[in-house]
Amino acid sequence: MSQFLSSRYTNVQPYRPGLQLHDRPYVKLNANETSMPPSPAVRAALTDALIDGLGRYADPHCLAFREAVAEVLGVSIEEVFVGNGSDEVLAIAFRTFFDDETPVAFPDITYNFYRDWCTTFGTPFTEVPLNEDFTVNVRALEAFEGPVVLVNPNAPTGIALPIEDIERIVRARPDRLVIVDEAYVDYSDGTCLPLVRRYRNLIVVQTMSKSRNLAGAHIGFAVARKEIIDDMRDIKFSTNPFNVSALTAAVGIAAVKDTDYLEQCMEAVAKQRAFLADELRWRRFTVLPSKANFLFTRPVGMGAAELCRELQRRGVLVRHYDQPRIADWLRITVGSPEENEALLDALDDCLFEAVGLR
Amino acid sequence: MSQFLSSRYTNVQPYRPGLQLHDRPYVKLNANETSMPPSPAVRAALTDALIDGLGRYADPHCLAFREAVAEVLGVSIEEVFVGNGSDEVLAIAFRTFFDDETPVAFPDITYNFYRDWCTTFGTPFTEVPLNEDFTVNVRALEAFEGPVVLVNPNAPTGIALPIEDIERIVRARPDRLVIVDEAYVDYSDGTCLPLVRRYRNLIVVQTMSKSRNLAGAHIGFAVARKEIIDDMRDIKFSTNPFNVSALTAAVGIAAVKDTDYLEQCMEAVAKQRAFLADELRWRRFTVLPSKANFLFTRPVGMGAAELCRELQRRGVLVRHYDQPRIADWLRITVGSPEENEALLDALDDCLFEAVGLR
Repeated sequence: MSQFLSSRYTNVQPYRPGLQLHDRPYVKLNANETSMPPSPAVRAALTDALIDGLGRYADPHCLAFREAVAEVLGVSIEEVFVGNGSDEVLAIAFRTFFDDETPVAFPDITYNFYRDWCTTFGTPFTEVPLNEDFTVNVRALEAFEGPVVLVNPNAPTGIALPIEDIERIVRARPDRLVIVDEAYVDYSDGTCLPLVRRYRNLIVVQTMSKSRNLAGAHIGFAVARKEIIDDMRDIKFSTNPFNVSALTAAVGIAAVKDTDYLEQCMEAVAKQRAFLADELRWRRFTVLPSKANFLFTRPVGMGAAELCRELQRRGVLVRHYDQPRIADWLRITVGSPEENEALLDALDDCLFEAVGLR
Repeated sequence: MSQFLSSRYTNVQPYRPGLQLHDRPYVKLNANETSMPPSPAVRAALTDALIDGLGRYADPHCLAFREAVAEVLGVSIEEVFVGNGSDEVLAIAFRTFFDDETPVAFPDITYNFYRDWCTTFGTPFTEVPLNEDFTVNVRALEAFEGPVVLVNPNAPTGIALPIEDIERIVRARPDRLVIVDEAYVDYSDGTCLPLVRRYRNLIVVQTMSKSRNLAGAHIGFAVARKEIIDDMRDIKFSTNPFNVSALTAAVGIAAVKDTDYLEQCMEAVAKQRAFLADELRWRRFTVLPSKANFLFTRPVGMGAAELCRELQRRGVLVRHYDQPRIADWLRITVGSPEENEALLDALDDCLFEAVGLR
């Protein structure tokens, strides 16, 4: 670190994304991305008039994008906040609502960034262990006094918590905030959005990086009661008012509105998810019931860490976590039919080699 | 504010961008934007392959963009940090290097966001008055013990500080950081970039929102010694690793590389700036010597605030500041020949009406 680093950050352990591997073409099933193109409307949205007008700042209020989200999701425009990916939206929510005294709770096995944001912004946190079967400990979170953060369906387990359980956590303590990160919600059966009307201590965050095939455009949004959205807007306006570029807004609006294409994509992923889960179970792997675009699986015949490395040697990337409780598991993104076949071929090759059959 | 707002922010006075006026077509000379299109290479950079691949995350290291900047500016890739506009780059620098004890100094008349970021992030600050002639008080900043932030050329005055003076401030105290925001540098004669090689306490920030006609795409970058860039990268990776989208990176690379187009645009603005300054001086307005894409001028025949309102009534937007020291002044963006003619027509109409000649 430089001699100038603020004393606030001397303890921060920054997330370090691996350098992208380019030594060969990889089948990338390690980042919950999709190989499907975005809606055809996205291409059409990047008009010559938009490009020629890039000398002007985009609307810092993101009104057109918020209108599109509000219309499609059935909420009001005052209840929508837009950001540079759901990571920015969540980071702004953490900064806006959490302080350095009240601990925030989230499961021990969840999106790693909740811990990272707390560390970065100096907020204490409590990791509430998932139950033995990797479901969320609802009772513990109900009883917790401070704010709660959940991703539903959970990552990396893929397990969805019933909306009634989330409602119990929200209702238990109206004076504390609950953030529900719905990054993978379109792959599941239900969203918490209707709860926003009933509870004023709930923030629902969604992303266009997964179901809308727009990870590379990086757009996310939050839905909550107006007072909460106003606070987030104020902190955004005090930091980076023009956080959503004209290109991002145009692309986002086009993708949000194309709900038919979203449905097609969700059906394709559900079909491939069922196929891949069957194939893994046929190989006696344990597979958790996933409502996301990935599977969490415990392999048989080879340790998870070793299998991850062996798959990489064969050109297939999946995700392994060092965390002791899930060290025997792999998170595998549900790919296209071709990607999934390539994964299964590589997998069988690893397993055959391990028992001396190759 | 909501009941959940963090105690950290209860004193924040957020920047509130005005709702964009759409009641009629306006000649917008109030935001230092440009009506010129970006380089033709920008349109060409948004290829079908790029769009179809948006399901994948962009490179969080932004290597391709940093390579382009490094090549064009003659620095090394390790010395470049990229962000969602220079506002994000500056906000990250403020968060990364400033704390809640050491005051930061900047001129009293400068980019308002320096004050806002200090307030938002809890950093104390000292406003060092500009000299009577609106030049920077170099001696006071040399003597100041803590970090210094400057925009050069200064906004809203447009006056450029000689590089030798910036070097004096940087050299005076090698143990404190100096941030030079070069938002408008391409419109001037000289950049501080060569100083980065000689001093390890300097950060130079540039934007593509002005000279590259890409305000709507919102891309900025910092150049500094590797240790400093590494610290900023760590804080970015601990907050929003994918802050630069694939669209932003593609557009940015195309624009950075088209240096011929940049030169054409700079010549066009310099010509219009000289024309507009002459016209205003001919009307006996005081006009500060500008090295930016705007003029800072004290009108004659009507107060600045009133003239600003009267111009707006006639469809022309310019910028007036409530700050007492500059309440008699207007900041006017140098527009296209047509925009400047529209401004002058509206101006004459205001002034004639004021003396009863219309």
